[in-house]
Amino acid sequence: MAYSKVIQDLIDEFNKLPGIGPKTSERFVFYLLENSPENLDSLAKAIQALEKVSQCSVCFNFSEQKICPICADRQRSHSIICVVAKPQDLMAIEKTKEFKGVYHVLGGIIDRPRGIGPKELKIKELINRIKNKESRIKEIILAFNPNLEGETTILYLTKILKEYKINPHTKGFGVGVKITRLAKGLPMGGELEYADELTLSDALKGRKEL
Amino acid sequence: MAYSKVIQDLIDEFNKLPGIGPKTSERFVFYLLENSPENLDSLAKAIQALEKVSQCSVCFNFSEQKICPICADRQRSHSIICVVAKPQDLMAIEKTKEFKGVYHVLGGIIDRPRGIGPKELKIKELINRIKNKESRIKEIILAFNPNLEGETTILYLTKILKEYKINPHTKGFGVGVKITRLAKGLPMGGELEYADELTLSDALKGRKEL
Repeated sequence: MAYSKVIQDLIDEFNKLPGIGPKTSERFVFYLLENSPENLDSLAKAIQALEKVSQCSVCFNFSEQKICPICADRQRSHSIICVVAKPQDLMAIEKTKEFKGVYHVLGGIIDRPRGIGPKELKIKELINRIKNKESRIKEIILAFNPNLEGETTILYLTKILKEYKINPHTKGFGVGVKITRLAKGLPMGGELEYADELTLSDALKGRKEL
Repeated sequence: MAYSKVIQDLIDEFNKLPGIGPKTSERFVFYLLENSPENLDSLAKAIQALEKVSQCSVCFNFSEQKICPICADRQRSHSIICVVAKPQDLMAIEKTKEFKGVYHVLGGIIDRPRGIGPKELKIKELINRIKNKESRIKEIILAFNPNLEGETTILYLTKILKEYKINPHTKGFGVGVKITRLAKGLPMGGELEYADELTLSDALKGRKEL
């Protein structure tokens, strides 16, 4: 005797969620079976509401509006664009409350073994934002995970964006953008003793005068 | 800048699931955002379908029908009732394919510190099933977790069911039920060296002649 169809169907649905196996799916379903119809409806409707979410036409963050609240915010500095791989990274930066510029969500990171090249990402759209004279972009911050794919994407973008870069010799003449990347080094709370060599080497190279 | 309402609402909903924190909820939502509206609908509808699930009026397992498929199955032996705490335990036993009797789901286990006494459980209903002459119950198997609450529930039920028990002196005279419990001992794949003393002591006491 297996589970009834209704129960098995929902177990199968939850099973599709990332990192969720059949045992956890079962646990979710039995938890929900103890919920009121109102609670079930509220969960079901919250899921269906996701259909309303699309992408901001400027920065490609998830948004319920054509232009997301960050891009629509006149208080933020629209001349600094922080480029991230995915919306979750954007949220992580927002949580620091340190960044008052705007974003550009590439929708992934260059990862050729997985078939993700520059064409799969919103790179053309980033260039169009920079090209647009009215936006007067001053700085592009590249904020990717510190790993192979992140470095590859930084290398690629640096090359592609070269022609829009500030030229030290012509500085002040014509429009140019500064291209920066996040600092690498020891993470807060990390222990020097247990830091891997690459991190420690980055921390050394990036040392700051006091 | 926080998540948009639609996204935050669903994060909050998933956050209520057992063992799911805000980070995992976020991961679920971002996973679902990449799904088609059809997939979202199918998950939402699977959740709403749970409203159709109620309890079998005989054994109190979850069921979409008034009488669940196990209780309605004429091929099964209705004179043997396996008493379990919750539907998940019933399913675990079903998966062994060893048991051809029927079940009785108590809806919990005696756990006084958490306010669960015999009145909160379907014990009266179990007694009514035994009392019912037509059902001709021969055996009650008590299948609870081998822990303090399980033992407490076994003790309580053994006392309560005493009057329906087979009396060795009157055996064969009048109706009587056999009351049994699951065997305790070493779990399959377990290692003697690492078994706790209680398990090993149970395994010793329950040793079988070859």
